[in-house]
Order: sequence, then C-alpha cells, then structure tokens
Amino acid sequence: MQNRVTNLFGIQYPIVQGGMVWCSGWKLASAVSNNGGLGLLGAGSMHLETLQDHIRKVKLATNKPFGVNVPLLYPQIEEIMEIIVAEKVPIVFTSAGSPKKWTGWLKGKGILVAHVIASSYFAGKCEEAGVDALVAEGFEAGGHNGREETTTMNLIPSVRKSSNLPLIGAGGIGSGKSMLAAMALGAEGVQIGSRFAITKESSAHEEFKKLVVGLEEGGTKLSLKQLAPVRLIKNEFFNLVEEAEKSGASPEQLIALLGKGRAKKGMFEGDLREGELEIGQVSAQIEDIPSVEEVMNRIITEYNQLKEEIVSGANFSF
Amino acid sequence: MQNRVTNLFGIQYPIVQGGMVWCSGWKLASAVSNNGGLGLLGAGSMHLETLQDHIRKVKLATNKPFGVNVPLLYPQIEEIMEIIVAEKVPIVFTSAGSPKKWTGWLKGKGILVAHVIASSYFAGKCEEAGVDALVAEGFEAGGHNGREETTTMNLIPSVRKSSNLPLIGAGGIGSGKSMLAAMALGAEGVQIGSRFAITKESSAHEEFKKLVVGLEEGGTKLSLKQLAPVRLIKNEFFNLVEEAEKSGASPEQLIALLGKGRAKKGMFEGDLREGELEIGQVSAQIEDIPSVEEVMNRIITEYNQLKEEIVSGANFSF
Repeated sequence: MQNRVTNLFGIQYPIVQGGMVWCSGWKLASAVSNNGGLGLLGAGSMHLETLQDHIRKVKLATNKPFGVNVPLLYPQIEEIMEIIVAEKVPIVFTSAGSPKKWTGWLKGKGILVAHVIASSYFAGKCEEAGVDALVAEGFEAGGHNGREETTTMNLIPSVRKSSNLPLIGAGGIGSGKSMLAAMALGAEGVQIGSRFAITKESSAHEEFKKLVVGLEEGGTKLSLKQLAPVRLIKNEFFNLVEEAEKSGASPEQLIALLGKGRAKKGMFEGDLREGELEIGQVSAQIEDIPSVEEVMNRIITEYNQLKEEIVSGANFSF
Repeated sequence: MQNRVTNLFGIQYPIVQGGMVWCSGWKLASAVSNNGGLGLLGAGSMHLETLQDHIRKVKLATNKPFGVNVPLLYPQIEEIMEIIVAEKVPIVFTSAGSPKKWTGWLKGKGILVAHVIASSYFAGKCEEAGVDALVAEGFEAGGHNGREETTTMNLIPSVRKSSNLPLIGAGGIGSGKSMLAAMALGAEGVQIGSRFAITKESSAHEEFKKLVVGLEEGGTKLSLKQLAPVRLIKNEFFNLVEEAEKSGASPEQLIALLGKGRAKKGMFEGDLREGELEIGQVSAQIEDIPSVEEVMNRIITEYNQLKEEIVSGANFSF
C-alpha cells in the first residue's frame, strides 16, 4: 500500500468502482474489493431493505474494505444513513448534493467519506465539510454530470491545484493507460464506472451490456441539461428528450416525459428503446463482458507495462 | 530526435503550436520553432498577401521547420495552396474539411501533411488520403470542434486503435503533465493552442490575453452547435447566441447574428463584449502571459520531472 488513496481505504490498488445505479450490487462490489480495488454499492437505485440486504451480502462475500455510494438529494437519505451506520459500512462516497450536512455526522461514526465533484469550486466546500477524499469526475463520465462540462483532462489539474486532499480522478477511465494519464494529471487514484458496469458481476441487464459493447464513438451525449445533466446512450428515449428540448419544452414537460423508473426499465430490465441508458464516453472502447478479475488484471498489467515504456521507451524521451 | 513525430517533422520536442486564427502570426510560429517545437501560421485569419508576408517573415526569423494551418473550407483555398507551394512551406496542417482533395497534391510537391480530426471515423479517411500524421482534438479544445463531443481522454485511445499513423493529441493540453497524459493515452506528440495564444509572441490583443488569464473553470462553452460547434468564452456575444438558440433561432438567423468579422473584433481588436472569443477549457489553468521560450521550458521541465516521479515515486507504484 503505497499512496494516499490506497492507505486511506486500506486497499491494494487505487481503483474505486463507481457506485452506479442498477449496476452496482453486492456481486460487483465484493468482486472489486476481493480483487484489490474498492467496491461500492450504488444506493441510488435501492430500496432501504435492498440496500440492507446487499450490504450484508457484501460483508459475507469479502473481508476487504467496501463502501456505499449515496446520492445526497434522495428523499430517504436519513434512513439510508441509519442503515449504513447500523451495518457498520466503513466507507461512504457521497454525490449529487452538498457534503456539508452529512460528512461530519458520518465521520463522527468512524466512517470515511469521499465526495464526488465536477468543479474545483466544490473542492473548497468539501474541505470545509471535512471530507477525506475527493472524486473529480469529468464531462465524459456516464450518468449525472456537472453543468460546466469540464473534461477530466482539465478537471483533475484544477482540483489538484485548489485542494490538497487525496484525489481520485473519474470520467473516461477504463484502462491502465487512462489510469496512468489521470495520475499524471495529479490524481492519486481513479474511479471507474462504465468498465465495471459491463462485467459479468454487474447487475445490469444482459441486453444493456451487449448494447454498450456494440456502442461506438459518439454513441452517448450529455442530455436533459434543463433538469440535471445526464450522459445517455442515443436511443429512442434520448431522441424524444432531444426533440422536446429543441422544441422548447419546459422543465415540467421534461419531468413528465421522463416519468418514473426509466433508468430501471433500461439498465435493469433491458428495455433498450424506452429506458434511460446511462454510460460514459469510454463505452466506445468497451468490447467485451469480462469478469471483474479480468478487468482488474488488464488495468494493472497495462498500467505497469506503460510505466516501463515511459521509463525506457524512445517515444517518451526528449 | 526520438519518436515518430519529432522524426517526421525534424523537431526537437513533439510539441506543435496550433495554427489559431488571430493569434498565430510569424512571431509566434518562429518563436515556437526556434525553441524546438513546430510553429504553425494560422492561415484561417489571413488575407493572401498577409499569409505570404508572414511566411516570408517566419523564414527570416528561423531556419527550423515550420508549417501553416489551413482550414479547408475557406473560399480562397486554391490561392492559399499556391502561395504555400511557391513559398516552399515544408509542412501543412489541414483542418475543417476533407483531407481527400488536397493531401495528394501537397505531398506531390514534397510537403508533409497532417490533418486535424475529432473522431476516429476520419482517421481512416486520412489514411486513404495519404496524410502523414493525425491530430486528434478533443471536446475541451478552443475554437471549432467536433459534433460528437468526444473528449481528449477518450479520443486519443480510439484514434490510436483505428490508425497506426503518427498521432498528435490536442485539446486541454498546456502543461508537461497533460502532455505526458496525452502520450500515456497513445499520442506521440501534442498540439497546444490556448497556452501559446496567451504568450508575449501571440498576435492576439492584449485585452483578450488578460481576459483569458482571469478566466476560471466553466468560463467557456461549446456553442453555435446548429452551425458549426465552436468553444467560446461566455461574454455578451456568447449570451446573445445562447438566447437565440434557446428561443429556437434558425441557422440563417444565427448566421445573421454572427455577422462578419466577430473573431477578429474580439481576439485581434480586443472588443471583449461584442467579439467572438475562442479559447479552450485549459484557459482555467492559464495564469500569466509568458514568452514562448518560458512556456516551452516549463512544459519540458514539468514533463521530465513527472517522468522521474512515475519511475520512482510511491504514488505511482502498485
């Protein structure tokens, strides 16, 4: 255990698996933790009992550190936090909301807290709140995203400059090369979402996984900017949203169009036409559905080979 | 001279200065070439006589390789190409158009040709056309940009996979760290625009340079998507465009709003309210107006220090 991120969480590799809705159940999280990374459950798509059940199953499946991702804007946030404390979850990643309210409370219970940001402005807010680590997530990431559209290439150096907290880069990362790129930019670890969403252990629907494998460059777009920006696959539902936005739909009309349960319908139930399908730009580089063990091996092997090349390869010497 | 990009162009460092409108005259291009990079004149903002004059001045100011960036959609493209050949320019970077028509003709005259792309789909088109090198430019870059919004972090690996041509990464790069990140992703060199636009030798207006120095994250946005997407600083003109697009303006109405000479007005004449101000997201990291020599020194020093850290630093070892 070598750097601040591995030391903080007590993990072998500074690789965090993003706690994604409808993908990140106990199988995925425990597999990542068992393979030396940090697995996260995605509380954002779980009923309270489901969350409790998955936490218990992770604890049975691994004795390594794991965590839960909690979107702070959720209505049942107090109940979620109570379950996390009751079940002795050691690590919480918060997102989609201010870190002010819950960070101190969680830390008072001995829980480590990382917070996901899309702008270095919020790095200061995280420091004030007492957060243990930052996740800087760029425009290319799947799912919900920032309004400033700052890409990972620019966000990591900006956040690095504005805060000295342990920093995890996210957005567009799914390989050893992009991991090393993120760390060259100033990160001390990476959060990987899409690549783990498309593994055997992900709870996403098989048809969703296959669709992502076939996806090419330009297959996703940041959409729903009038409500909360979210990167979606360009399917029939996406087209409806785009048409509505172009014809000047109000936020209320967009909310009505969105309806309830779209993400579940798409990613969990496999309705590729009507569902809301969230994945990052890195999907263009995803070409198979391997096990978590295979993904971790590929990333670490590629990372270390590239390190050797940087040291000794003519391509990098000036 | 170590890698394919430095060998191809006969330069010391694989750093190309983007041939930007209103910034890239003979002073900037020759300074970059004299400091070991590849300086490019930006033909996109020059009358024919101006271009000829600047080429002659570059040749007087440096005996190192230099080039001209030519946006292929320009009306006087044939005259531009004739001047380039008559003045024995050794290298041409083409952009904004198909490489099919001009690449073979230029190469027949002994001129090296690189082409700027924003999607790996066009990498194949470039190979067919016989291009010598590719510039893969991501969403975060300033000025004109692709429709697929693929970021540098994702574009470089995708282009790398689809073509074996010498590859120059661009978009969001202005430091040794981001240069090394781009090369870790698979590039063999970088094209840097914004950082060179804000140097002493850049022909941009002083007030424009100062504005960029003060710019923070989120200070730019990809706009005019209905016409041709271009990343702009959020000034009064940008706000007019955004309002027009939101209220459903037609392409014709947008063209009328844009009018003539907006970019010159803003970047060259310093009208920061009414002008079209093009710069990349990396502007948030630009904090001064140094000389080109200073910029080159900083980049190479930071690049080599980071290489050392990657080799021996605990942060990078797993």
